[in-house]
Amino acid sequence: MSAVLTPDALVESLHAIGAERYHDRHPYHHRMREGGCSKAEIQAWALNRYYYQSRIPVKDAIILSRMEDPALRRAWRQRILDHDGDAEGEGGIERWLKLAEGVGLDRADVVATRGILPGTRFAVDAYLSLVRERSLLEAIASSLTELFSPRIIQDRVSGMLANYPFVTSETLAYFTARPEQARRDVDVALAYVRRHAVTPDSQADVQTALRLKCDILWAMLDALDHAYGERGQVPPGAWRP
Amino acid sequence: MSAVLTPDALVESLHAIGAERYHDRHPYHHRMREGGCSKAEIQAWALNRYYYQSRIPVKDAIILSRMEDPALRRAWRQRILDHDGDAEGEGGIERWLKLAEGVGLDRADVVATRGILPGTRFAVDAYLSLVRERSLLEAIASSLTELFSPRIIQDRVSGMLANYPFVTSETLAYFTARPEQARRDVDVALAYVRRHAVTPDSQADVQTALRLKCDILWAMLDALDHAYGERGQVPPGAWRP
Repeated sequence: MSAVLTPDALVESLHAIGAERYHDRHPYHHRMREGGCSKAEIQAWALNRYYYQSRIPVKDAIILSRMEDPALRRAWRQRILDHDGDAEGEGGIERWLKLAEGVGLDRADVVATRGILPGTRFAVDAYLSLVRERSLLEAIASSLTELFSPRIIQDRVSGMLANYPFVTSETLAYFTARPEQARRDVDVALAYVRRHAVTPDSQADVQTALRLKCDILWAMLDALDHAYGERGQVPPGAWRP
Repeated sequence: MSAVLTPDALVESLHAIGAERYHDRHPYHHRMREGGCSKAEIQAWALNRYYYQSRIPVKDAIILSRMEDPALRRAWRQRILDHDGDAEGEGGIERWLKLAEGVGLDRADVVATRGILPGTRFAVDAYLSLVRERSLLEAIASSLTELFSPRIIQDRVSGMLANYPFVTSETLAYFTARPEQARRDVDVALAYVRRHAVTPDSQADVQTALRLKCDILWAMLDALDHAYGERGQVPPGAWRP
């Protein structure tokens, strides 16, 4: 087995995983940012990604249910508050629905997740399985893709506003709140990982969990690309533009 | 809600689902059969599909663990025997490994499932989740893609033998045993479904489970097609020819 890493070296290894596997390297992201996507591709992205967004508080509730420390639960529950808001019409999921409506989708269709790609469903459900079945350390570590999200969000927002006349900054309001929330969430998760991943095995687990999470995000874009990209092979039963 | 179907009409509706969604309609299958696949595409198919094969007895053990009726368990356990064999070197999984070796892969690499596509892993794991989390009726119904498998197997075997010099009938021995096993398995599953799916809701559940299983098989070929087909976008970490 490899030697134990210092906490800083472990974090460095996580950044290396992101540099290799995070979905800001995916062709679909590049096309979306650079104006190369059709409106249907943007709509398919919003529709499918809604399923991911809708599972985030469920995922965080599973993680919360596995934490024994009230202080840690207090820090982690903020994620659920962010996504569900304090009242009808607030929170991240609601802002994602505004995004979906903003690009021309019907709200009720999006909420029903009818027509999402099987590849989306299987990838997102794999995220729920991960946080349910692996150790709490791995569940927490899988959230660390947020280390890389402020960069992709900035990229995506500026690119989409510049390149698609039908995309407005109100439509993209979801992303305005996210970078600050992500930085705060990362602080909590990273502190936990630095403190608890102190053996070669647990450090390898953390790396594997982050790789798996990157694979989940990547597979979601692969599924979109395959169905709605150039070749356009929409699977039976999935949304057709 | 829709009216209750007779058992025969229910079975007819299942065949209609197969006609729309079974993976014998997938472009990758057609290309494979007609000689349009590269050797790397055949290898990638064998490598990835091994993960599916290796999960079959696990899937059937989960289903077995949920059955209360010894007679039903006796009938169902045959599936596990078929795949695991009676001794080292026997059974369906072993025959799949022979297939993988026959097309030029290293046995140990295949068994390790290193380099399989995340899309494969998520789809196959979704099958395990289905049989674990949904009702026993739905778990059993999800096996009914075997209603359609004798046809695709015949298609695949004759096409592959005709079109790929590196594929021999010894390599494809896995498929020799399958059609008869599948027919016997289908009899058991179909008898159960006909007897127990006797309300509109349970009949809809059966249809949904079969659709989901078709989506799983379809998503596996989508992932292969996207990674190893014409455009060849292999995800980070996956096998490269």
